[in-house]
Amino acid sequence: MIDVCLLGTGGMMPLPNRYLTALMVRYNGKSFLIDCGEGTQIALKKSGWSPKPIDMICFTHYHADHISGLPGMLLTMGNAERTEPLLVVGPKGLERVVKALRTIAPELPFPIEYHEINSDSDQIIIPDMPEFKINAFKVNHNITCYGYSMQLDRIGKFNVEAAKANNIEQKYWNPLQKGEIIHTEDGRIFTPDMVLGEARKGIHLTYVTDTRPTDSIIKYAENSDLFICEGMYGEPEKLQKAKENKHMTMYEAAELAKKANVKEMWLTHYSPSLVNPKEYLPKVKDIFSKSIAAKDGRNITLKFEDE
Amino acid sequence: MIDVCLLGTGGMMPLPNRYLTALMVRYNGKSFLIDCGEGTQIALKKSGWSPKPIDMICFTHYHADHISGLPGMLLTMGNAERTEPLLVVGPKGLERVVKALRTIAPELPFPIEYHEINSDSDQIIIPDMPEFKINAFKVNHNITCYGYSMQLDRIGKFNVEAAKANNIEQKYWNPLQKGEIIHTEDGRIFTPDMVLGEARKGIHLTYVTDTRPTDSIIKYAENSDLFICEGMYGEPEKLQKAKENKHMTMYEAAELAKKANVKEMWLTHYSPSLVNPKEYLPKVKDIFSKSIAAKDGRNITLKFEDE
Repeated sequence: MIDVCLLGTGGMMPLPNRYLTALMVRYNGKSFLIDCGEGTQIALKKSGWSPKPIDMICFTHYHADHISGLPGMLLTMGNAERTEPLLVVGPKGLERVVKALRTIAPELPFPIEYHEINSDSDQIIIPDMPEFKINAFKVNHNITCYGYSMQLDRIGKFNVEAAKANNIEQKYWNPLQKGEIIHTEDGRIFTPDMVLGEARKGIHLTYVTDTRPTDSIIKYAENSDLFICEGMYGEPEKLQKAKENKHMTMYEAAELAKKANVKEMWLTHYSPSLVNPKEYLPKVKDIFSKSIAAKDGRNITLKFEDE
Repeated sequence: MIDVCLLGTGGMMPLPNRYLTALMVRYNGKSFLIDCGEGTQIALKKSGWSPKPIDMICFTHYHADHISGLPGMLLTMGNAERTEPLLVVGPKGLERVVKALRTIAPELPFPIEYHEINSDSDQIIIPDMPEFKINAFKVNHNITCYGYSMQLDRIGKFNVEAAKANNIEQKYWNPLQKGEIIHTEDGRIFTPDMVLGEARKGIHLTYVTDTRPTDSIIKYAENSDLFICEGMYGEPEKLQKAKENKHMTMYEAAELAKKANVKEMWLTHYSPSLVNPKEYLPKVKDIFSKSIAAKDGRNITLKFEDE
């Protein structure tokens, strides 16, 4: 299972009751943050989650509302006496931008590692966590910007009959179930597929903000359990403004959700001019019924289907 | 009169109900901000004041909790379609630090001017506002740090008898009262002191944070109407920690207030570990009775004595 918390839902500037859009994801003792704007650490504190175990921060792009909270977050992680390395992921220029911001946070008790994305898509692998994959894919904003899709794979059911038919001793069953390949002392080789049924449906989460609708979004969001997408404007007449500023209306987000056949969509990254995002929801639901106008701190635990 | 709003009262990191310490001052249509940490723009929005007319931002020092909100504040000022230049003031390295932070806020519709402080004290003059003086004075933190003292002068009362005795025509009274020197067509010279009584008591406001107690603070805060001072720790046993981290306890702040003979002191810049600053106030008041444990958004209008 994956815990998800949408820390904020604002775009452009933080407001008294609306922090900037950022997503915290927790899986198997590790935490991942997407974007870190001004105030994200306050929103995180409000959520009750800790900044200390953040293993990775992914940046969609380097507009201030998505990264300005980084120096403060780093210092707060440092004050929590973290020593483990932090992986930061983002578009071209990552090290330059992070180092510039660290002018005001030069001393940290933990190292920072960089994963720069230099192509239209990229996969980030977390050590010792092969079942959890993070895909970055290019979207269409006025500077280079990526969406992120997280996929937790689920192996097939353990098949006792198959294990027995393959003459695999019981002591190997558990390691095989965990994905290990077994080389026995007498030279036999057992692989997980010998004891496992077909891979079952995993968990799929997609996060997209600051972009026009793109085919890449539909591709990477396809069949997501949760699709978190910007809905900068609710007023239908702001479509032109959305096009000019390379953002989306809520209706465009709903069209993407429908095309990508996701289970549920949370709208976020509202324009500061959008006082009550819910006002526009009925018409959004006409396009995609499982649409939610998320508020700060909205969270869910995404579970495997029969969990 | 001067409007004063202490936007936040936190130190180190912003908390859900305590923004970072920053001060907004408004005088005669102009606004001045001292420090701009993560979330200061949210606190400003909460206060109901506008970021657009900020003419000057003074930085005490370049620790993240005092400057990390700058990129966001600049962008918000830009979004408000400000075009007037902004003056930024701060210790050595000012341009380097501001430019580094502007990596994520490169495009602004207004120019930034720099006033770097390079000596133990400095005076900042606002154009067309000679009666309002801002003094920066070095304090004692673990990096170069300044306190700021604002002084609004008040001219003496207009003395009709003196004006008449000096044979000054009535049309010159108003310009003289405004501080102008008059050269008449027939070669006479009139100066303001010919029509004004002795200068009256003005308004004096002093802001000090991130420092051990210093003589410079006593000197510049002397007789202040309002003395805003860090009180990082309330627990008396944290004196040693205060010394190590180059901060102050509330009791040390009260001693300064007493020695500087100020009218009132507001404590601020509380440690995140300090949940209820008021708890320690009785003992602080034993040292200096006019002490207040300020909360976010505390504001006052400082008036001339008989206004």
